[in-house]
Amino acid sequence: MTIANQETILDHLKEHLKAEQISMNETIKELHGQDESYHKMKLPDMVVFPETTEQVSEIMKISTQYQIPVVPFGLGSSLEGHVIPENGGITIDFSLMNRVLEVSEEDFLVTVQPGVTRSQLNKELKKYGLFFTVDPGADATLGGMAATNASGTTSVKYGVMRDQVRDLEVVMADGTVIHTGNKAAKSSSGLHLNGLFVGSEGTLGCFTEMTLRVYGIPEFVTAARASFPTVKDAVEAVVSILQAGIPIARVELVDKQSMQQVNQYNDTAYAEKPTLFLEFHGNEAGLKQDVEFMQEIVQGHACEEVAFETDTAARNLLWEARHTLAYAYIHGYPGKKMMVTDVCLPISELAGAVGHARTNLIEMGLPGGIVGHVGDGNFHALIMMDMSNPEEVARAQEFNERIVVYALERGGTSTGEHGVGIGKQKYQQQEHGHALDVMEKIKAALDPSNLLNPGKNIKSVKKGVE
Amino acid sequence: MTIANQETILDHLKEHLKAEQISMNETIKELHGQDESYHKMKLPDMVVFPETTEQVSEIMKISTQYQIPVVPFGLGSSLEGHVIPENGGITIDFSLMNRVLEVSEEDFLVTVQPGVTRSQLNKELKKYGLFFTVDPGADATLGGMAATNASGTTSVKYGVMRDQVRDLEVVMADGTVIHTGNKAAKSSSGLHLNGLFVGSEGTLGCFTEMTLRVYGIPEFVTAARASFPTVKDAVEAVVSILQAGIPIARVELVDKQSMQQVNQYNDTAYAEKPTLFLEFHGNEAGLKQDVEFMQEIVQGHACEEVAFETDTAARNLLWEARHTLAYAYIHGYPGKKMMVTDVCLPISELAGAVGHARTNLIEMGLPGGIVGHVGDGNFHALIMMDMSNPEEVARAQEFNERIVVYALERGGTSTGEHGVGIGKQKYQQQEHGHALDVMEKIKAALDPSNLLNPGKNIKSVKKGVE
Repeated sequence: MTIANQETILDHLKEHLKAEQISMNETIKELHGQDESYHKMKLPDMVVFPETTEQVSEIMKISTQYQIPVVPFGLGSSLEGHVIPENGGITIDFSLMNRVLEVSEEDFLVTVQPGVTRSQLNKELKKYGLFFTVDPGADATLGGMAATNASGTTSVKYGVMRDQVRDLEVVMADGTVIHTGNKAAKSSSGLHLNGLFVGSEGTLGCFTEMTLRVYGIPEFVTAARASFPTVKDAVEAVVSILQAGIPIARVELVDKQSMQQVNQYNDTAYAEKPTLFLEFHGNEAGLKQDVEFMQEIVQGHACEEVAFETDTAARNLLWEARHTLAYAYIHGYPGKKMMVTDVCLPISELAGAVGHARTNLIEMGLPGGIVGHVGDGNFHALIMMDMSNPEEVARAQEFNERIVVYALERGGTSTGEHGVGIGKQKYQQQEHGHALDVMEKIKAALDPSNLLNPGKNIKSVKKGVE
Repeated sequence: MTIANQETILDHLKEHLKAEQISMNETIKELHGQDESYHKMKLPDMVVFPETTEQVSEIMKISTQYQIPVVPFGLGSSLEGHVIPENGGITIDFSLMNRVLEVSEEDFLVTVQPGVTRSQLNKELKKYGLFFTVDPGADATLGGMAATNASGTTSVKYGVMRDQVRDLEVVMADGTVIHTGNKAAKSSSGLHLNGLFVGSEGTLGCFTEMTLRVYGIPEFVTAARASFPTVKDAVEAVVSILQAGIPIARVELVDKQSMQQVNQYNDTAYAEKPTLFLEFHGNEAGLKQDVEFMQEIVQGHACEEVAFETDTAARNLLWEARHTLAYAYIHGYPGKKMMVTDVCLPISELAGAVGHARTNLIEMGLPGGIVGHVGDGNFHALIMMDMSNPEEVARAQEFNERIVVYALERGGTSTGEHGVGIGKQKYQQQEHGHALDVMEKIKAALDPSNLLNPGKNIKSVKKGVE
């Protein structure tokens, strides 16, 4: 944006937004120039805070008129640089569009604005005996979660973000407003735009309203911690539980090193061994039978201890410990930045992949832990690195690459839930092959000037960044 | 296709296919000129029977070179004219690509060719204690089921076809072969092509290989029939069961008229009342508790009789009766053709919609029954009509339109599982609004000459048929 241009754009924006909805303050720009990842900060030229779909539409029309890039922004909790404005331009912050618009109990649906956070939504839904299942580590906005197809600990039972989206209101590059779906539980009408826009990382349009599927809070919940001598034993126990058909709601792996971080950060005294955090949802009789069966299975995999957390407070503490693990690491390594790997593999390849990751962490002398949504075949290595030490950063990047290549060679994906952003772009050709051309064609058809979050996810060949 | 052109194309095809893989026989052409619907037959110029992905790719290159339309064909069990070659051209019959390529028990995945039928797949999977959940009425091919995003009686628990597809090998318009996904349980990498291609009705590419999610055969299964004085009572009972959080695996509504057809066709003696067919999957203790709770609920909705079918033979008979219902109608009205409505609505609107449909059937003097996958909000009115009586056909079409408009006005969709084909095109503008332009842009980007099943699903504006 040139200075002359900037004045014209500002004037044009002020026709549709109040002065306080537009900011060029340096601190505000810095807050919108980074996310929770190690990726390098870049500043937007300005930040706007729309309140309505109409305002977002006007912003997009101005973006098209002046050919200015636009980056949609939720809370900035992305982990691969998704919200960093690679080419400057306008960042659209959705924090003022944060209302829960409608709860339809009978239909198990909720309609929200994209700036609503998952904890805000769950607080509202609790009044109706409902909950929203998807729970990434961060208290992200639902718009951001849809943009990256986020998931978390419950997807093994309830599915990922994409499975919950019934309809999105989307403002397209030219300012047109569309709806990608409807309120029916299923549809075979037209092309499946819901699925296409979820995970598009702001590159196809801006979400301004979302209708999401919610669930009844389960009648009974049992949580358990099971400790194993090795990570391999723990992962193999999960495979056996899944094969036995036990309908598990959550099953998380936390390795020994990460259990130490959990205890330090949360002041807990859990066994510092490779541990599975498990949860079961259902009716009382069914759960009792499931849990007994689960105990038999884990004992067949050298399980050393199973501890149950039946009351709500202890269970919440357990999951709080799991959810804050990334922050536990950040807290434990002051001054360092975190890199998180995010591959997902067929479950039969998971034990091998986790073993490969641990071997490489040791060989490469990197401090870090391994945690994972093992029921999905998705795991993370959390590596702490000193950004002022280029050799250490390069080593961490080399580690990430080894993990990704291992997964891609075995039918997996470079990212199970964090998204591509900037960090996973270099693997897209290897992962998708000719399908990447198809993705590029779709992007070019819907955003011909490449103004929507340029340089992220798939990169337009025609006007790519870098 | 001109005659001169045809010779050249035949010669070109014979470079890649054996003579017996190409047919211009009139009977063969007629078999590929219609489906199970009332839509009018049109003949392809020729039918080809490829055996490999490479052959499909060569066929697509020839199609592009000579600008000849292509229609992918499974078994012809579609219900909205999907496989009718509106513009002639080449029909690609996938019946020779019918092998189950790999069963991966540990990963709950199977890789198949598109010509495999659902019964063929389930026969193979049974050896491993697994089953494929999606069960439309017809014994369709899996390629056809993916093309229409088919579902059936089990989607309330296991999801629709789109939920089962992990990866598709697709031959694009220009002959390029892509993979739309991978073998991991979830992914946030790139744009979600799996979801986009499922339900695209052969308009974006030809499926040549599919990796699908399968499930373990449940430990315990209980099926039940529950009769009610009115359809409204039955539907309201379903809503209460869902709201109680009972994890039902199947819940089908069959109205009084349709129960009569069932008994006549299957020689059964079920009560001829509005009936729910229900099924529960789980462990023994959990099922017992679920079923008791279900009985309490249905009794609160004036249920007159609950009969359980616990042994496999009686249960299979029950579901066989439900699955063959369309054929029961066809058998019961010789000489008539069937039109099937297929709307899906938010569950809170279902009782009203079913009542509206019954009222209109009576008012319009149309013989027919109502059945539905009521757990999803999806129901069908089956209307028998005499195709030689234009007034009767017009009345049936008017009925269908009233049903669709009612659903669209209440957040529903014109088609829950049958797809758009020819029959639902006229409602696409009303249903999708500006989103239809987005669909058109995607179609134009991926099939610029509109050669892939032209005139179906969304219709290319640029080279639309009719």
